[in-house]
Amino acid sequence: MAIITLTTDFGHKDHFVGAIKGTILSNLPEVSIVDISHAISPFNIQECAYILKNAYRSFPPGSVHIVGVDSELSPENQHIVVQVDGHYFVSANNGVISLITSEINPEKVMEIGIPNLSPSSFPMLNVFVQVACHIARGGKLEVIGKPFDALKELREFEPRITNNGNSISGNVIYIDNYGNVITNIQRSLFEAYRNGREFELIARTTKMKTIHTSYNDIVNFDLNKAQRKGPGDALALFNSAGYVELAIYKSDLNTVGGASTLLGLNYRDTVTINFL
Amino acid sequence: MAIITLTTDFGHKDHFVGAIKGTILSNLPEVSIVDISHAISPFNIQECAYILKNAYRSFPPGSVHIVGVDSELSPENQHIVVQVDGHYFVSANNGVISLITSEINPEKVMEIGIPNLSPSSFPMLNVFVQVACHIARGGKLEVIGKPFDALKELREFEPRITNNGNSISGNVIYIDNYGNVITNIQRSLFEAYRNGREFELIARTTKMKTIHTSYNDIVNFDLNKAQRKGPGDALALFNSAGYVELAIYKSDLNTVGGASTLLGLNYRDTVTINFL
Amino acid sequence: MAIITLTTDFGHKDHFVGAIKGTILSNLPEVSIVDISHAISPFNIQECAYILKNAYRSFPPGSVHIVGVDSELSPENQHIVVQVDGHYFVSANNGVISLITSEINPEKVMEIGIPNLSPSSFPMLNVFVQVACHIARGGKLEVIGKPFDALKELREFEPRITNNGNSISGNVIYIDNYGNVITNIQRSLFEAYRNGREFELIARTTKMKTIHTSYNDIVNFDLNKAQRKGPGDALALFNSAGYVELAIYKSDLNTVGGASTLLGLNYRDTVTINFL
Repeated sequence: MAIITLTTDFGHKDHFVGAIKGTILSNLPEVSIVDISHAISPFNIQECAYILKNAYRSFPPGSVHIVGVDSELSPENQHIVVQVDGHYFVSANNGVISLITSEINPEKVMEIGIPNLSPSSFPMLNVFVQVACHIARGGKLEVIGKPFDALKELREFEPRITNNGNSISGNVIYIDNYGNVITNIQRSLFEAYRNGREFELIARTTKMKTIHTSYNDIVNFDLNKAQRKGPGDALALFNSAGYVELAIYKSDLNTVGGASTLLGLNYRDTVTINFL
Repeated sequence: MAIITLTTDFGHKDHFVGAIKGTILSNLPEVSIVDISHAISPFNIQECAYILKNAYRSFPPGSVHIVGVDSELSPENQHIVVQVDGHYFVSANNGVISLITSEINPEKVMEIGIPNLSPSSFPMLNVFVQVACHIARGGKLEVIGKPFDALKELREFEPRITNNGNSISGNVIYIDNYGNVITNIQRSLFEAYRNGREFELIARTTKMKTIHTSYNDIVNFDLNKAQRKGPGDALALFNSAGYVELAIYKSDLNTVGGASTLLGLNYRDTVTINFL
Repeated sequence: MAIITLTTDFGHKDHFVGAIKGTILSNLPEVSIVDISHAISPFNIQECAYILKNAYRSFPPGSVHIVGVDSELSPENQHIVVQVDGHYFVSANNGVISLITSEINPEKVMEIGIPNLSPSSFPMLNVFVQVACHIARGGKLEVIGKPFDALKELREFEPRITNNGNSISGNVIYIDNYGNVITNIQRSLFEAYRNGREFELIARTTKMKTIHTSYNDIVNFDLNKAQRKGPGDALALFNSAGYVELAIYKSDLNTVGGASTLLGLNYRDTVTINFL
């Protein structure tokens, strides 16, 4: 059964998501429609790019991913289809796929051109869904558009190597449901420059000398509970997506707070790693 | 595969939605269950009616729509099935379907009467799901109830024509995820009275002389970015559902604000169009 | 078609839920994936247990329920599979299933042991999903682990019988989308001790002498609307899950308030029933 995923900033109240699913099912009765997220902050390309990159890989090749963030057509925001890593992305050309295409060369990039479609304030419904269903049915990309070579990139995702290779300077690119703060520093980059050295990670007033690989790493289960590290303690870890993350053990933004609130870290704040 | 949609005010945390889906799948293993919305404000019939009208049309005819807002049975809130526009709506008789039935005559309206069912505080689970699965399996409406002729209407959705046909006076009926403010004035009504005239739209202190058909309409892409209209600018448009909407270009209620907050517009506030 | 449900504290924004669904579909293309809830408060075992108990029963036997709350592996938080009431639960051993196993003896409890799996901060993706798909395909539990006899229980769910059987002293265990306050006192326990007696229910300053079986029970529809009880009035009822609940008729936490805010009741607060 074909798979079509949805990633949007539509939220969960309005009729938009329901209308899109109804249109997909009207076009293609046998299909698995999967919500990746509808809670992207409105028009936030960076958030969308991070979520999309870390979700798409789990789907089987051939999946079609519709991205409905900042998707209204304009001369500077073309409608495109990108075939990359065996997956298909239907979106506007606003950088939402650039975290993927910066690491894997796209196989094909097409600008969507469907004759006789009037402009609309809801292009996902009358353009993206048609294109996605066409692809999901096994249709050729050449039918729905022409090659395109001006794929937009997001530069702000790239950390900077400074101080003669002795420092990595990154930024906060995402804050998750637990208030965990995710930076744009990937484990592969960190390891490429580390060369076995000790290091210090600095984020505002927080300094850390270890990057863990699980949250429980900070807990010494041989100690009794009163003596252990535990809820409320901060740590850095390579998260499951491979990025450096600052976290509070067992955090809850609505009660005890999370890394974003307790360490005072926000989108775009700087996080530096100095190798010693 | 049969389609059953869900529109409720249950929110996303409680067990209600899961229990309903489990019950549907227990009754009817091969079915597409689609969430339209579970984020209707509690007991808000107007919101529900607007969302339902604009979502159902995208689904194929024969779809069954369960509506779980204010659905507890009472002498004044009967349980009904409405067949209209080729779709089936299972709900309480509280006006949630009246935006649809005010434009399209229903084919059939039945009051649900299932013997031996004890009253319950969760009628969706033990009444609506049974009825929806019966219909989805191709069962006759006559089996689950008897004809009903007291379908409740919502009067507040109708704008008023005033000033000898020179003004339309409407109200805010919905505020969407972006803070866009939607009125009950439909494009068809506007065009019917306009007769090619200039006009002025007035909403509190905001006055507009154009109603666009897309958000990007206000941007002149020939100008450089500093000179253009863009994020933060207000506009009126006929939204994709065909209603007059007041919007802020690229708004976000959590950061820069939206039309509701920036123009100070709330549910039921008056929006007037004067033809000149 | 096999059914796999998901109950997590992942929220609706991050990529986690999408990644899990993609991995399930990659393993098992023909499956119904149903979200029970992703809005559990982070690490809140009690909330999760209440939601899970009241949702799972509606699914057909043989369903596999993945529970992703506080699921990181540790020496004190083993990964387990519990077969109970004909259903399969894949979770950490933290008590999330104890509301079910306290009433129904589990048929089988296994500790998951999959060789060659490295520890991870996202065990749902690389452990729970593999196990769930194995079970959904009809695989034996013995393949994925070994018998386990240290199932964790949650004691705080049990109300206390005091005053020589003349009082039941319970606690608030859940607050729902409407602000309704749910206690751990079940109807079966209440009836077992009542013996036909009058009673008084006390929750802070609220006292009630009746427990209804539906919200509309408090409304006398023979009176005209001005004379009736209605929106804003408090009541106690046995909710559809069988627990004593304190509610405000037609409440909305965002506007008029609900039982939690209007009666000043919070998690763990005491609710007492004195038989007279």
